[in-house]
Amino acid sequence: MKSIGVGLLGLGTVGTGVVKIIKNHQDKLMHQIGCPIEVKKILVKNVNKEREVEIDPSILTTNINDVIEHPEVDVVIEVMGGVEETKKHLLAALRNKKHVVTANKDLVAVYGSEIHACASENRCDFYYEASVAGGIPILRGLVDGLASDKITKLMGIVNGTTNFILTKMSKNGSPYEEVLAEAQSLGFAEADPTSDVEGLDAARKMAILSTLGFSMNIDLKDVSVKGISQITEEDLNYSKRLGYTMKLIGIAKQDGEKVEVSVQPTLLPDEHPLSAVNDEYNAVYVYGEAVGETMFYGPGAGGLPTATAIVSDLVVVMKNMRLGVNGRTIVSPQYEKSLKENSEIFSKYFLRIHVKDQVGSFAKITTIFSERGVSFEKILQLPLKEKDLAEIVVVTHTASLKDYEEILQQLSDSDVVSQVKSSYRVEGDDVQ
Amino acid sequence: MKSIGVGLLGLGTVGTGVVKIIKNHQDKLMHQIGCPIEVKKILVKNVNKEREVEIDPSILTTNINDVIEHPEVDVVIEVMGGVEETKKHLLAALRNKKHVVTANKDLVAVYGSEIHACASENRCDFYYEASVAGGIPILRGLVDGLASDKITKLMGIVNGTTNFILTKMSKNGSPYEEVLAEAQSLGFAEADPTSDVEGLDAARKMAILSTLGFSMNIDLKDVSVKGISQITEEDLNYSKRLGYTMKLIGIAKQDGEKVEVSVQPTLLPDEHPLSAVNDEYNAVYVYGEAVGETMFYGPGAGGLPTATAIVSDLVVVMKNMRLGVNGRTIVSPQYEKSLKENSEIFSKYFLRIHVKDQVGSFAKITTIFSERGVSFEKILQLPLKEKDLAEIVVVTHTASLKDYEEILQQLSDSDVVSQVKSSYRVEGDDVQ
Repeated sequence: MKSIGVGLLGLGTVGTGVVKIIKNHQDKLMHQIGCPIEVKKILVKNVNKEREVEIDPSILTTNINDVIEHPEVDVVIEVMGGVEETKKHLLAALRNKKHVVTANKDLVAVYGSEIHACASENRCDFYYEASVAGGIPILRGLVDGLASDKITKLMGIVNGTTNFILTKMSKNGSPYEEVLAEAQSLGFAEADPTSDVEGLDAARKMAILSTLGFSMNIDLKDVSVKGISQITEEDLNYSKRLGYTMKLIGIAKQDGEKVEVSVQPTLLPDEHPLSAVNDEYNAVYVYGEAVGETMFYGPGAGGLPTATAIVSDLVVVMKNMRLGVNGRTIVSPQYEKSLKENSEIFSKYFLRIHVKDQVGSFAKITTIFSERGVSFEKILQLPLKEKDLAEIVVVTHTASLKDYEEILQQLSDSDVVSQVKSSYRVEGDDVQ
Repeated sequence: MKSIGVGLLGLGTVGTGVVKIIKNHQDKLMHQIGCPIEVKKILVKNVNKEREVEIDPSILTTNINDVIEHPEVDVVIEVMGGVEETKKHLLAALRNKKHVVTANKDLVAVYGSEIHACASENRCDFYYEASVAGGIPILRGLVDGLASDKITKLMGIVNGTTNFILTKMSKNGSPYEEVLAEAQSLGFAEADPTSDVEGLDAARKMAILSTLGFSMNIDLKDVSVKGISQITEEDLNYSKRLGYTMKLIGIAKQDGEKVEVSVQPTLLPDEHPLSAVNDEYNAVYVYGEAVGETMFYGPGAGGLPTATAIVSDLVVVMKNMRLGVNGRTIVSPQYEKSLKENSEIFSKYFLRIHVKDQVGSFAKITTIFSERGVSFEKILQLPLKEKDLAEIVVVTHTASLKDYEEILQQLSDSDVVSQVKSSYRVEGDDVQ
């Protein structure tokens, strides 16, 4: 029986994992697909480097064309990273009638629709389950499992590094810098952690998730982003005291035809299932009109989980090949993109400010809120060690982002406010 | 464009939900499938009954053959329940080249493989996502999402009624009978709750899950079952004190080639993600060799969630129809069934016994354990109000079920033991 040929671009941790899985699970894969899989060619930087897994040196190459033009390669698996150059190579592969599986969220978040179109023209498959929350089959869940439902909200912890940092900060009361250094030494954070801690990585995943969930082309630039580097121990202490857990949450929400997508540090009630998602784990909460609340939980990254997701995609591609139905998956967005204005984005907010400890301060503050019809759900006021200052922490009732930003501006301008210390979205404590 | 015809067997809550979803989501479904869906015929008990949803009375029938022999029905959706008779009708439908989608776990747990075989012979699809944990696309996750992984353990809360009861008992300290009555009045428990509270419903779902997860034909009778009706407030109090949460847990575990499948009240550490699954919600924890731990969470039942799962299956069937690939899904078990002996089933145990409060009692008890090499992880000893008795609560280190059952027997026979009050499996506090 003819085997199906695979070409790999990259042989780092994930690539090695893919090779291992294909090797160790030949039987199971064969049972599912009905024919053997063979890795035909692998692009590497250095053919002489020692590898964790036994590989015939003759299939290693440093020339990408050896992979994407190889006559016996049916499926190209891209695990080398990069965006612009990588896109060109994958488009070339698709034009060569190679199916493409990738774990590259940077690429998919920006060029997903372009690559999809090219795949479709060439009757090729293009899958990227591994690009979001490595070990969790969430994309498949959204596309297949909830096929008949209208998804109204996606809420997720989709970055393992920041979840690890926030978990440690909350549990041990350690400061951000210290925990970041620990995460780096454990390999949970990169030497340059910017993309993770500033929320960009999570934003890319939310762009991919919301594009599939709402069947609408959501770009990375449509996602409003705020990272975790400004979060202090005081904020975490107050969260705890008020019964909340701080998480970096990606929210994608649809009301009527309009959507909002953001990534920001968010307070969730302690009893919310996402509050129990700790360390480097990821989870995505999905609200469907019919199904209600479902959640997918699992490892967000890691060589083997990501490799598992890639091989799952590979299995789908190969089943499609056997059935002769590649490139026919209908995943093109059904709706025109329509983003909410700030006046249409509603939420509760946690706000911590330092005010002058004098008669009438609090009244002035409350007036700023009440003039915009925003009331308080919770209030804490505490004296500060610093002379003449008091700390006020409030959780508002639901307010529009427009009103809330105006309130923040007015508070900053107010003569009784010494400083607006911090502000976070509060989610998950009401029926959505 | 030709429409795809659907026939429904049953028009209760779930059936009505299916009709509603097909009606309300025509556009989305059409976008995915590429042609309209039409409900052609519905089997009901009473054609004149008032319905929640508008239905052309001419498509209602009380004769099942009108549905399963209808020339324009392509897919039969079975939501009427029943086992023996229903099986006959579904086999007849398959022989008439109708694809079958069902939510009927009783049927699938017992006759799944027979129906599969018949479907395969007739090149028809047979899907049953809705039979396990209604709103959670767990079967699809097992078959597709984790296709390339070796699943070593499934651990799930797969019955909403018992989870509702245990959650209320734990939170409010109310006794079993009282909470059961409340669950019945809220519609979370049947008038005859036996199948739920004695674990049979959960056992059916575990048979289905483990058959798919291990690719092995696991029958209902292979599942060892214990329900929740014997759980007392004392047990729940001790669990809490020791940092555990009591759940009715289905466990399917594979070591080497051998598997064990059981449903029983189980203590999980409070910080285990399944401990946070409350009320009528369900969740399935999956351990894959490569992927590690993943969890699927959602509503376990309910008309609309179940209907959503059914329509998701329907979408798959219809896509297959459009592609001309029905009946080709390879889901036949790959391995011969091989069940563990009791000497191969390992776990920790929680045990509560009443002993005579006299010198040497405790020594005698510990000897019974130590003779079988079983040691204690946690011990609590408390005097009882009843004269001359003390209560001992222990959590053992890992022991084989064979040893543990012998210990239980010897404790019952011992002259220092007044009564073995309760015993539960303890799970989830170690790397599996």
